[in-house]
Amino acid sequence: MTIAHPFTNDYSRSAHPRILEDLASLGARAFDGYGCDGLTSRASELILEACAAPGGAVHLVHGGTQVNALYVDFAVRPWQSVVCVESGHIATHEAGAVEHLGHRLVTLPADEGRMDAAVLEDYLRGWRDSQLREHMTEPGLVYISQPTELGTLYSLEQLEALSSVCRSFGVGLYVDGARMGYGLASKANDVSLADLSRLTDAFTIGGTKCGMLFGEALVIPDAAHAGSMRTLIKAHGALLAKGWLLGVQFLTMFRDGLYTSITRTANERAARLSRAFADAGFDMLIASPTNQIFPVLPVGLARELIEEFGVYEWEPVGDSRLCVRVVVSWATTDEDEAALIAWIASHTLR
Amino acid sequence: MTIAHPFTNDYSRSAHPRILEDLASLGARAFDGYGCDGLTSRASELILEACAAPGGAVHLVHGGTQVNALYVDFAVRPWQSVVCVESGHIATHEAGAVEHLGHRLVTLPADEGRMDAAVLEDYLRGWRDSQLREHMTEPGLVYISQPTELGTLYSLEQLEALSSVCRSFGVGLYVDGARMGYGLASKANDVSLADLSRLTDAFTIGGTKCGMLFGEALVIPDAAHAGSMRTLIKAHGALLAKGWLLGVQFLTMFRDGLYTSITRTANERAARLSRAFADAGFDMLIASPTNQIFPVLPVGLARELIEEFGVYEWEPVGDSRLCVRVVVSWATTDEDEAALIAWIASHTLR
Amino acid sequence: MTIAHPFTNDYSRSAHPRILEDLASLGARAFDGYGCDGLTSRASELILEACAAPGGAVHLVHGGTQVNALYVDFAVRPWQSVVCVESGHIATHEAGAVEHLGHRLVTLPADEGRMDAAVLEDYLRGWRDSQLREHMTEPGLVYISQPTELGTLYSLEQLEALSSVCRSFGVGLYVDGARMGYGLASKANDVSLADLSRLTDAFTIGGTKCGMLFGEALVIPDAAHAGSMRTLIKAHGALLAKGWLLGVQFLTMFRDGLYTSITRTANERAARLSRAFADAGFDMLIASPTNQIFPVLPVGLARELIEEFGVYEWEPVGDSRLCVRVVVSWATTDEDEAALIAWIASHTLR
Amino acid sequence: MTIAHPFTNDYSRSAHPRILEDLASLGARAFDGYGCDGLTSRASELILEACAAPGGAVHLVHGGTQVNALYVDFAVRPWQSVVCVESGHIATHEAGAVEHLGHRLVTLPADEGRMDAAVLEDYLRGWRDSQLREHMTEPGLVYISQPTELGTLYSLEQLEALSSVCRSFGVGLYVDGARMGYGLASKANDVSLADLSRLTDAFTIGGTKCGMLFGEALVIPDAAHAGSMRTLIKAHGALLAKGWLLGVQFLTMFRDGLYTSITRTANERAARLSRAFADAGFDMLIASPTNQIFPVLPVGLARELIEEFGVYEWEPVGDSRLCVRVVVSWATTDEDEAALIAWIASHTLR
Repeated sequence: MTIAHPFTNDYSRSAHPRILEDLASLGARAFDGYGCDGLTSRASELILEACAAPGGAVHLVHGGTQVNALYVDFAVRPWQSVVCVESGHIATHEAGAVEHLGHRLVTLPADEGRMDAAVLEDYLRGWRDSQLREHMTEPGLVYISQPTELGTLYSLEQLEALSSVCRSFGVGLYVDGARMGYGLASKANDVSLADLSRLTDAFTIGGTKCGMLFGEALVIPDAAHAGSMRTLIKAHGALLAKGWLLGVQFLTMFRDGLYTSITRTANERAARLSRAFADAGFDMLIASPTNQIFPVLPVGLARELIEEFGVYEWEPVGDSRLCVRVVVSWATTDEDEAALIAWIASHTLR
Repeated sequence: MTIAHPFTNDYSRSAHPRILEDLASLGARAFDGYGCDGLTSRASELILEACAAPGGAVHLVHGGTQVNALYVDFAVRPWQSVVCVESGHIATHEAGAVEHLGHRLVTLPADEGRMDAAVLEDYLRGWRDSQLREHMTEPGLVYISQPTELGTLYSLEQLEALSSVCRSFGVGLYVDGARMGYGLASKANDVSLADLSRLTDAFTIGGTKCGMLFGEALVIPDAAHAGSMRTLIKAHGALLAKGWLLGVQFLTMFRDGLYTSITRTANERAARLSRAFADAGFDMLIASPTNQIFPVLPVGLARELIEEFGVYEWEPVGDSRLCVRVVVSWATTDEDEAALIAWIASHTLR
Repeated sequence: MTIAHPFTNDYSRSAHPRILEDLASLGARAFDGYGCDGLTSRASELILEACAAPGGAVHLVHGGTQVNALYVDFAVRPWQSVVCVESGHIATHEAGAVEHLGHRLVTLPADEGRMDAAVLEDYLRGWRDSQLREHMTEPGLVYISQPTELGTLYSLEQLEALSSVCRSFGVGLYVDGARMGYGLASKANDVSLADLSRLTDAFTIGGTKCGMLFGEALVIPDAAHAGSMRTLIKAHGALLAKGWLLGVQFLTMFRDGLYTSITRTANERAARLSRAFADAGFDMLIASPTNQIFPVLPVGLARELIEEFGVYEWEPVGDSRLCVRVVVSWATTDEDEAALIAWIASHTLR
Repeated sequence: MTIAHPFTNDYSRSAHPRILEDLASLGARAFDGYGCDGLTSRASELILEACAAPGGAVHLVHGGTQVNALYVDFAVRPWQSVVCVESGHIATHEAGAVEHLGHRLVTLPADEGRMDAAVLEDYLRGWRDSQLREHMTEPGLVYISQPTELGTLYSLEQLEALSSVCRSFGVGLYVDGARMGYGLASKANDVSLADLSRLTDAFTIGGTKCGMLFGEALVIPDAAHAGSMRTLIKAHGALLAKGWLLGVQFLTMFRDGLYTSITRTANERAARLSRAFADAGFDMLIASPTNQIFPVLPVGLARELIEEFGVYEWEPVGDSRLCVRVVVSWATTDEDEAALIAWIASHTLR
């Protein structure tokens, strides 16, 4: 990695110093295995408190693909499918994990990364009314991300609409919150963890991309539905022997609000970078209020940006332009930001 | 079923009289179980002869969804996916059978039901060159249908192009021939069973929709690849105890060319009906040279046709018209055809 | 098949003449597809009547391995396993069908082919009380066969005991009735179909081994639990396009008691053969009251019997003897029986 | 955890101080994601060097159940099963992970935790020669553990015999080395990592129980067979975003022999404890040369030992005695050992 100021992703840096300190402070202490330790149970309590879900269940696992596959496997019956947008992470970059466990994905067109409640309702109604319904998987779970893969957010109104459609058709609603921290800290956000508890069947609170070494918390607001999840986690090869490693990290994150504060600066930097791109005459693919932004550049400039700042090529826009994904992370520094701002200024289209 | 002259599908009538006769002639004879009988081995020989595949293997199973899932399960590794067009039968009306066995489907846009070799090549190259390739399933098998779900056919040239792309990327090619008989008997067809043996890794010869009670033959031209298929068929719950029921039917079909002659009249009827719809001023969704045709009618007329002849609603065309699927079968009679011709004549748009 | 008087199995002969007649009488009539026809619904009604399960659901599928895998897949959650005896058909000769769908089998020692309620209770209690319970699959369904693989029967008392254990632990109970007809017709039997409806969650009524061309009826006494089974059947590749083929056969079987009368003679023949073996001084492995019997012969004699009557080698008994499986079927004739009786008489040990 | 001197397991303490130091020394550095970093590649090189497998491939994953399921899924085809002993970890305490991915387990009786080559050969020959072979899964992979679940070791001669049987039947051989470190450091051991490279298709080197926070290395000596493993790891939800966490730990372990030295003391303590139990008149279930020992005590004493030292109840021995599992770990201290020695001395049977 020879890129001085990388904007590649939000999981290449180790972890927030407080995470590393708290971990180090444990020394060689002994803990009960497999997440049956005190740190994990305390972390779970704090998370349920933050989610206003006193009767809920929390399960901590090591990664995002795992937690998505886990909940799908838990909730979706063999004759059912998972409905998501075409750009949904489970439909694109999880190597078929959901299908590998036997579950079909049905994809709907996305609106700036979001699933539209009306589009969903049309699909569900179409399925329900089809002459060939029995020859098609029954929609069992709707999967969305908050923030989406494009950095956009569902508004509370949009989430309520989706939730209402799901409930009227008896379909579950699951929210992948791999970057939930960036969403919660966004000025544009009006969806709280408590709202998620109220409106969904399950959601995750991502740590890996938000300053932890690894770890995602699966929150099931109504524990009555949490069943034999620990055995399923074991069957997925995902019950960490030293589960307290997850517990201690989430404890640090939720003890005094670090989870939502750690990401605030990243969002602010992203907003400043968005403005800089716009000021320099570049279009943005969409307006993102979180830590991922999507400027569109002439191909030559885009390639230069990719080379110099390690950003991802996202997609071609017309014949002569490329959209790239610029990711600010909790670990991005003032120097990183200044370097990219300077590059933009010196490549202005105006 | 109170529809006097149904054009609903090609599997509602029992079976061709010669099939029923040959079956009846066996009386209560005893056979070795599970397809290890003489009828089945003789049928397999005849099929391999017809396919010019002397070193091949044939497996007979009871249905189309089963045979598709079986070959996918046999050929596709856990890190691989199946590539098909959006209208592919495995992607629409097989209830997620392929995914249920752990395999992801990737869908490409269709051109009149066909997969375009250039579109496939673009997809395969995009996957191969992607930075995120390891996060996406590896394309393992291409699935197409001959005829397609829209009754269209691949020309020999188109099939050769697809085969060439598949081989250059090391991806298998499988052809679902649920209606192969209608394809082989079509005047527009220039693809023989021998061509399929030469150009694909496996294909099926469908009986259920072509005049048999049930039965699909899976042909694997290079038996070196046929491995432990019988155990897998058993694991799929698809090894019929009285497998000779499949053998005797395919024997009747391939002893003296019944398989290709039985469907010829159906194609001719379909062509006459197509002309009648066109002469009456109706558009056709596509020009199909086989037994399924897709006229587009004003919604009111379409509903009447659905009611009277049991045809399927296919899809809306604009706001005021509906496309319906009219299926002629090997069992359609002169009276059926005359009744529909009369209906068209009395509802002409001109 | 050059064996004049085979006692190999009960599925090598075609079907009972009345089945063949009723099938032939349908000619080339048309039926609604996929089991949505009148014959199938009438057959289902008759079956539910015979089972005293007016609120139940019936699903007809083509084979025994399929129907077992289907119900397991329907009823068993991903963190659960199926409990059966070591000699259970799903644990021995179904090519791993249950595991292939993702479900673990746990096997218990058998008592003459039967699962003992006390052994089951010990196992369930051991699981429940284990420190490592979360690391082991949760018992979700108990699988037994009636008659068992050894031709023995559960008495009503034994079945009630099993059912009671299952219910007290919240575990389902499923009965594989591939040879149910032989069981119902046995003089030793005191378990009716109505008892099965009362004591189990689901059971099957086998046709393939009891005089039909193919077909097993899955009975779910409480239809409230029958859910989206038809979509799952489709996903298993087991929704026969011409489902009326199953309907007509079961209709013949249940219209006037053929299902229980067709097997009576077979049981009587088996009883006479058992006596003949015993009179000639041969041990029996177990005392079976149905159509399968298990004489133990000196190796040389056993090999001769295998050669001449096509019986299966079952297992060695000590160093010098072999147990063979002699199967009488609904199609066994007086001549077949006389030939075997004569062989036994001429090989007496006395 | 209020037990002062626990002998519960070998994964309750954090990690060896050098692991923690090396981890801490990285600070907040950035690394390429998903194991594409320099630490991981250097660790893999060192591991292959230690295994004398220059052409091999190494994959690092977080846990033992995961790595077992991963390799099985990679190597075993849908018509095949995995053969292991009844006490094999995958058959007992991995919650059906292997079956959940669609693969059947076949269990053989164990000899002090080991699979006997002659027993295996009998099984394989029985399968190959069975009339019903096609109705049974084909043996695809043999799974063994070194050390076994009972702490015993395969001798080089025993391993060579197993390998030879596997190769003559075309069946793969896989060794679960979750506690490999304790095996390598045992005075009784004569099997090197190089032997494993030569005699098996794949094996693991366990870190979680040998002093790392987490991590197992999968070694495939012949990389030609390593295929698209990284995509499969992703599909299993096991491709750690911050894969360098595994790299740095294995680097510490293999840079200068820590992996084999860290466990030596544990084995020596276990040997002293074994002697102490024996001297005090207690039987041992088996003679284990590694860190797990299995004394048999009168029930009352066993319960006391369980209570005081947190050891696991293993199994009843007769009516009045219990076998317990005493596990010494790399982290066990002189004080721990002295406390247990004292307890034994004060409870002597003599």
